[in-house]
Amino acid sequence: MVSHCTFALEFKVRDYECDIQGIVNNAVYQNYLEHTRHEYLCELGLDFAELHNQGIDLVVARLSMSFKTPLKSGDRFLSCLNVKKEGIKYIFDQKIYRLPDKKQCISAEVTAVAVINGKLGEAKHVSDAMERYKQT
Amino acid sequence: MVSHCTFALEFKVRDYECDIQGIVNNAVYQNYLEHTRHEYLCELGLDFAELHNQGIDLVVARLSMSFKTPLKSGDRFLSCLNVKKEGIKYIFDQKIYRLPDKKQCISAEVTAVAVINGKLGEAKHVSDAMERYKQT
Amino acid sequence: MVSHCTFALEFKVRDYECDIQGIVNNAVYQNYLEHTRHEYLCELGLDFAELHNQGIDLVVARLSMSFKTPLKSGDRFLSCLNVKKEGIKYIFDQKIYRLPDKKQCISAEVTAVAVINGKLGEAKHVSDAMERYKQT
Amino acid sequence: MVSHCTFALEFKVRDYECDIQGIVNNAVYQNYLEHTRHEYLCELGLDFAELHNQGIDLVVARLSMSFKTPLKSGDRFLSCLNVKKEGIKYIFDQKIYRLPDKKQCISAEVTAVAVINGKLGEAKHVSDAMERYKQT
Repeated sequence: MVSHCTFALEFKVRDYECDIQGIVNNAVYQNYLEHTRHEYLCELGLDFAELHNQGIDLVVARLSMSFKTPLKSGDRFLSCLNVKKEGIKYIFDQKIYRLPDKKQCISAEVTAVAVINGKLGEAKHVSDAMERYKQT
Repeated sequence: MVSHCTFALEFKVRDYECDIQGIVNNAVYQNYLEHTRHEYLCELGLDFAELHNQGIDLVVARLSMSFKTPLKSGDRFLSCLNVKKEGIKYIFDQKIYRLPDKKQCISAEVTAVAVINGKLGEAKHVSDAMERYKQT
Repeated sequence: MVSHCTFALEFKVRDYECDIQGIVNNAVYQNYLEHTRHEYLCELGLDFAELHNQGIDLVVARLSMSFKTPLKSGDRFLSCLNVKKEGIKYIFDQKIYRLPDKKQCISAEVTAVAVINGKLGEAKHVSDAMERYKQT
Repeated sequence: MVSHCTFALEFKVRDYECDIQGIVNNAVYQNYLEHTRHEYLCELGLDFAELHNQGIDLVVARLSMSFKTPLKSGDRFLSCLNVKKEGIKYIFDQKIYRLPDKKQCISAEVTAVAVINGKLGEAKHVSDAMERYKQT
């Protein structure tokens, strides 16, 4: 079952993402998770590259992933995201489900923080945008 | 202008594909071009990974690319493909256009051949499927 | 301080591994960690690709990473590995230190298991080789 | 035979660079070629990322590659580079040879130009450094 999520994005595996074992290479899931977070920012009206140019870098401080079912060449999947705030940390709960059978492939928790002009801080307009989005 | 093409696929740049210069890294265009060719095979009812398991490897023998306009974070683009046969070679004419302004980013010519059980050959059903697709 | 480790490998950052923020992209650290584990297997006289051909796939079941100091263009670093066995799991303790100042960049714990002809199991000769290597 | 070259760098294939076919993915060769050029710049006392920060971007305008022998998991190889100037273009002649048998894997010609504060131009100190290096 795909549980309720704040934001979801559909992908299709690309063959160059698969390795010798014929399955998506582990590191590529981090790419999928990152792209999902950045598209979520987009949805909030924010832009990762633009934030960087303004001196605001959203960086990953910690990440854990469980690999459950490998994705293969040709697979479609749904990448789902929920987020909560804990102090200045953004805790992303991210899951990937194969389509159409919705089998869970990956479960991940990603802790991100804002580095503002080189110092840990809170990007207030980012936090506010996340809050507003949840309420819609 | 986007000239007529046999097959086209829309993409969006992912931030991890961009490098220090803030633009899509050159090598990533090869990924885009490959994914376009493999999706084209899909459209023909063929499957790159499945062909490999049958002992038929479609491999790139030669490639040339001209880099015209760099893609950036957030850009959408169209990847267009035409193909013609020359003996046992498949010559792919591939172009990438930024959206929505259709400015040309990349022009490429990719020569692929079939290696069948380790030997250069013609994958007849691949050639036939390409021919049929053109006529539709 | 670089603590004692079973196996260590030196790398240099390649520019294509860096992203818009001018630092190594998070997902690339998984590449570094994987390459370190595979080179460690090599050192044991084992070969990841060869194992796959024999029906033995070493797969990552779980992974956690803490990102401490980002690596940048031009940085050299040391990737260190320790491993212990827990039942049929191999628990890799992996750390990356920037050179020459030995500042810690990444700390990771990677849990791998063997899938033998499609089933979880123990690859006895892999376990034995790890044990022998520790004692040398 | 490895013909005389201005600059050469030794690599080892990393397993995550290999794809479903068990060989290095075509796009990865572009990574190898880029890293070789950037290490060559290093050898000249220049730094790609630093040049970018100074407003000087060395960009690839055109590239052609012939794929001769595929590299596989575990292979070591030598990446060789020669360069000549034609007007404001730098023409890199790059070849990759498998080790230890020196079988040629890739032959490439890469045309790069300097974009200085957004405009095509000549990065005089880059050209001079290349010239001096040849004479040593």
